[in-house]
Amino acid sequence: MLNIEKFINKLDTLDFKNMYENDFFLTWEKTDDELEAVFTVADALRHLRENNKSTRIFDSGLGISLFRDNSTRTRFSFASACNLLGLEVQDLDEGKSQMAHGETVRETANMISFMADVIGIRDDMYIGKGNAYMREVSNAVKEGHKAGVLEQRPTLVNLQCDIDHPTQTMADMLSIIHHFGGVENLKGKKLAMTWAYSPSYGKPLSVPQGIIGLMTRFGMEVVLAHPEGYEVMPEVEEIAKKNAKVSGGSFKKTNSMAEAFENADIVYPKSWAPFAAMEKRTQLYGEGNFEGINALEKELLAQNAEHKDWECTEELMKITKNGKALYMHCLPADITGVSCIKGEVEASVFDRYRVPLYKEASYKPYIIAAMIFLSKIKNPQKVLRQLASSNRTRKFE
Amino acid sequence: MLNIEKFINKLDTLDFKNMYENDFFLTWEKTDDELEAVFTVADALRHLRENNKSTRIFDSGLGISLFRDNSTRTRFSFASACNLLGLEVQDLDEGKSQMAHGETVRETANMISFMADVIGIRDDMYIGKGNAYMREVSNAVKEGHKAGVLEQRPTLVNLQCDIDHPTQTMADMLSIIHHFGGVENLKGKKLAMTWAYSPSYGKPLSVPQGIIGLMTRFGMEVVLAHPEGYEVMPEVEEIAKKNAKVSGGSFKKTNSMAEAFENADIVYPKSWAPFAAMEKRTQLYGEGNFEGINALEKELLAQNAEHKDWECTEELMKITKNGKALYMHCLPADITGVSCIKGEVEASVFDRYRVPLYKEASYKPYIIAAMIFLSKIKNPQKVLRQLASSNRTRKFE
Amino acid sequence: MLNIEKFINKLDTLDFKNMYENDFFLTWEKTDDELEAVFTVADALRHLRENNKSTRIFDSGLGISLFRDNSTRTRFSFASACNLLGLEVQDLDEGKSQMAHGETVRETANMISFMADVIGIRDDMYIGKGNAYMREVSNAVKEGHKAGVLEQRPTLVNLQCDIDHPTQTMADMLSIIHHFGGVENLKGKKLAMTWAYSPSYGKPLSVPQGIIGLMTRFGMEVVLAHPEGYEVMPEVEEIAKKNAKVSGGSFKKTNSMAEAFENADIVYPKSWAPFAAMEKRTQLYGEGNFEGINALEKELLAQNAEHKDWECTEELMKITKNGKALYMHCLPADITGVSCIKGEVEASVFDRYRVPLYKEASYKPYIIAAMIFLSKIKNPQKVLRQLASSNRTRKFE
Repeated sequence: MLNIEKFINKLDTLDFKNMYENDFFLTWEKTDDELEAVFTVADALRHLRENNKSTRIFDSGLGISLFRDNSTRTRFSFASACNLLGLEVQDLDEGKSQMAHGETVRETANMISFMADVIGIRDDMYIGKGNAYMREVSNAVKEGHKAGVLEQRPTLVNLQCDIDHPTQTMADMLSIIHHFGGVENLKGKKLAMTWAYSPSYGKPLSVPQGIIGLMTRFGMEVVLAHPEGYEVMPEVEEIAKKNAKVSGGSFKKTNSMAEAFENADIVYPKSWAPFAAMEKRTQLYGEGNFEGINALEKELLAQNAEHKDWECTEELMKITKNGKALYMHCLPADITGVSCIKGEVEASVFDRYRVPLYKEASYKPYIIAAMIFLSKIKNPQKVLRQLASSNRTRKFE
Repeated sequence: MLNIEKFINKLDTLDFKNMYENDFFLTWEKTDDELEAVFTVADALRHLRENNKSTRIFDSGLGISLFRDNSTRTRFSFASACNLLGLEVQDLDEGKSQMAHGETVRETANMISFMADVIGIRDDMYIGKGNAYMREVSNAVKEGHKAGVLEQRPTLVNLQCDIDHPTQTMADMLSIIHHFGGVENLKGKKLAMTWAYSPSYGKPLSVPQGIIGLMTRFGMEVVLAHPEGYEVMPEVEEIAKKNAKVSGGSFKKTNSMAEAFENADIVYPKSWAPFAAMEKRTQLYGEGNFEGINALEKELLAQNAEHKDWECTEELMKITKNGKALYMHCLPADITGVSCIKGEVEASVFDRYRVPLYKEASYKPYIIAAMIFLSKIKNPQKVLRQLASSNRTRKFE
Repeated sequence: MLNIEKFINKLDTLDFKNMYENDFFLTWEKTDDELEAVFTVADALRHLRENNKSTRIFDSGLGISLFRDNSTRTRFSFASACNLLGLEVQDLDEGKSQMAHGETVRETANMISFMADVIGIRDDMYIGKGNAYMREVSNAVKEGHKAGVLEQRPTLVNLQCDIDHPTQTMADMLSIIHHFGGVENLKGKKLAMTWAYSPSYGKPLSVPQGIIGLMTRFGMEVVLAHPEGYEVMPEVEEIAKKNAKVSGGSFKKTNSMAEAFENADIVYPKSWAPFAAMEKRTQLYGEGNFEGINALEKELLAQNAEHKDWECTEELMKITKNGKALYMHCLPADITGVSCIKGEVEASVFDRYRVPLYKEASYKPYIIAAMIFLSKIKNPQKVLRQLASSNRTRKFE
């Protein structure tokens, strides 16, 4: 039965006015109240849809997506979020070629935005580039709006950059909140963000970084585990430390997967590339040194191969809290014997957690929609109430 | 003038409740009532649109299309059908590469379906694969819905597989029904589904199979004609035989185009590849034997070239009923002297039937829309009445 | 504050009834009243959107885009216009391959148009081809509509052809009208459409031709300047001459950039390829003579390089009216020291005019939307009033 008031009451207690007409780049740039507002609106939108209420807040308008990489999941999540709110998606495919800068970015950003309400960008390939590019686009359209070129200000949603992956980690977090019956139950829970072996090379750092940057804010005991040499960005570790202190939780590092799994409530085993190597790759790429890139790739694959024992096995799962930690992954996972000979996770573990994993992913379209909603709607409580009381249905019955 | 009641009255006499929340794979899996319901809703939707009534039954929602092959016509038909009902199309282009299976299909199917109401798949390239793949996708999202991952169950529409091409043949049939002034007038009409020469290789079997599998259900005298060696799937021939017996019509085979055309009311001359050869190709493909595939292609082109006399000529048309059989084709046709030196049909024959051919094609978007409508709407009569009596127009006037 | 009546009052004075159910190919095929109607509706739609009024005149329907070339700007302009009116865009990408003709065009045009309200085509690559192709498509769907194949007649919008670029030049003109405070203030204003140097080869002629074909209709002193050998289509020059005579303005030619800039109110410096060379290229292309094309390209680049002094510099800008002519460009411009070593315009000039240039571009989606609106709505005044008085908003507030 439809009950929108609980979400509205929650929103009434939160201060999120700075989200209006604003971008979403990094979770640690947002206040706790703002994150909570995203979770609340995501749940509210889902609740409306489940009760067959229309959530179209736009009668027309474009949602522009810009991907550096092929991306089925993120593309569909963004498309679903836009569609849910009434925006039509237009893809701007720049391919994998070096992204434009300066004059070209400024101009293109404005030229495609005359009727754009939101721009979603995924650009995670090169260290120091992706997030910077998003801010460049944001500044361009902000200026365009101020100068009267654009009637509305298109706001940016970071769909994954070199630093953070906020739509993923926020969806992960909302999944955790529901799994444990509320954010108030997370205090003291142990979360293990650990590296895991993959036969493929150069997986982005944005997930482990995003996880330690976000999950440390809820009083949890967050452990980052990886083999030596697989460090993430030091700046993000600093953020995790500060977060843990403020939230009354902890942030620890270890080079032992077992230590991280020991008594964990949540495990997130996932491969990534060493930050230092990714910096080197970016440099080589900038120099056009493709031989160097190939050499680096071989080196990294050999380095990975030394750590095949970093696998989320049944044995390791047994040492988690009651042997029943929640296993998480951003998907797709490298499943031993299924998608590769040896990978991040044993097939039977993955299999047992398939439904929770899919549900974890199901929050992403709502998280993206909530980010858009909060950046576009001045009085979200009023609009949620309007949507709930309207007789406009999502579909005819 | 708008008169929706005749369609509603027709629907009232039919039992089609099993279509709700169900897929459409093969026409012979559906009851006569169910097929009739599709025709009726297709006509009703067209009637509403012609009278400028909105037929949007979705306020938001995605229609996902998945094509193995380039496809302009089917793509636009599906897009038109989705748009007519209010769904936004999102293409999932997997290209011509070997389609994923198992874990990957299950996962991808769910990941793209969080807000998907329908998935349209065209996968006709390999014998034993296309239809199987569709069912795999359907099972994946059905499970996802049951497990609470997906809020709605995305239903499947077969946009052409290795066995059947239901959206094409149902559009063909609706065209025939209107041409002859009602399904009750089809008893005893002779339909010739015949092979025809084409300079290109490996055209799919789904059309001839779909035609004999469907057209034998209306009391017609269906003849399948082809040169020796161009057999279709034996299972489908069995279905055609059974259908003919039940419907009081007949199903015959011949190796003479003239015999098939003799006194025919409807002719459908079209090239296809021998079933046995397509099976062999699928096997070679599975083995990665590309030399073998090239050799097979040469062999088949040579075999085709022996039957250049299988052409729908003016002379042959003269021996049809009063020299005026309805000429049908799924398009594009290989027209002698127009799109090729020697092809399936003489230019003057094609030219004379252009308008009926285009009209035949015009039913496809409505057939697809009707399939979606019946799988999504529990009480179609009620909703049709709502749409008809609403003051919501398709466009401002 | 919303005031739609001024636009309606203006429309009441104009005769534009022939635009209904009609195409937009070339500005000089339209009457002054018809052009004025486009400007007025474009302004009215913008006014409605700025006041958060919904401008959806379609509840469903497709807008089909067909591009021969990669095109970000035009693609987004067309998509924005369609979305603004409620049409969903479907791209028909035929790539750069030789465009189909005859039977294939007729058939494809109908097959994609069952639910299409508008077709936007950009085909500017080959002299004598683009505009002819558009008319072929238009005739095909017109016939299809007459024959009862298509329920509605899809109308054509020329998104750039070998002769004219009406959506660009109409947007330019609307920008000029607003810059000078009304069309009545343009009499006697001097506009310099001049060639400028670019390091790239073969830029289309449609902009200079479109500009002289349109801007000569408002009583302005239009000057076309280019180095010897860079002539545009003689037929369009004839049109410009006639226009100037009728409108009480003038049309002059010169081979001196300075002469054109002298005391100009508006300057439009832009590179293009010589018409004769483009004709030759089309011929070579038709013959499949790719060596010849390469040779021609080298020749043209060498020819261009002789005219590097044709640059819009600060020095040249100083000799314009009060040193403050409005600098215009269809974008992207070749900016010296920014996008190339030596180009069409000095960086500081471009920089000073960035906001006006972006605003110039911002009219294009509205111009396209107005063209669609006038070809689809029988009584635009009534519908504009309906939209203004409706409580349907563009977005929730």
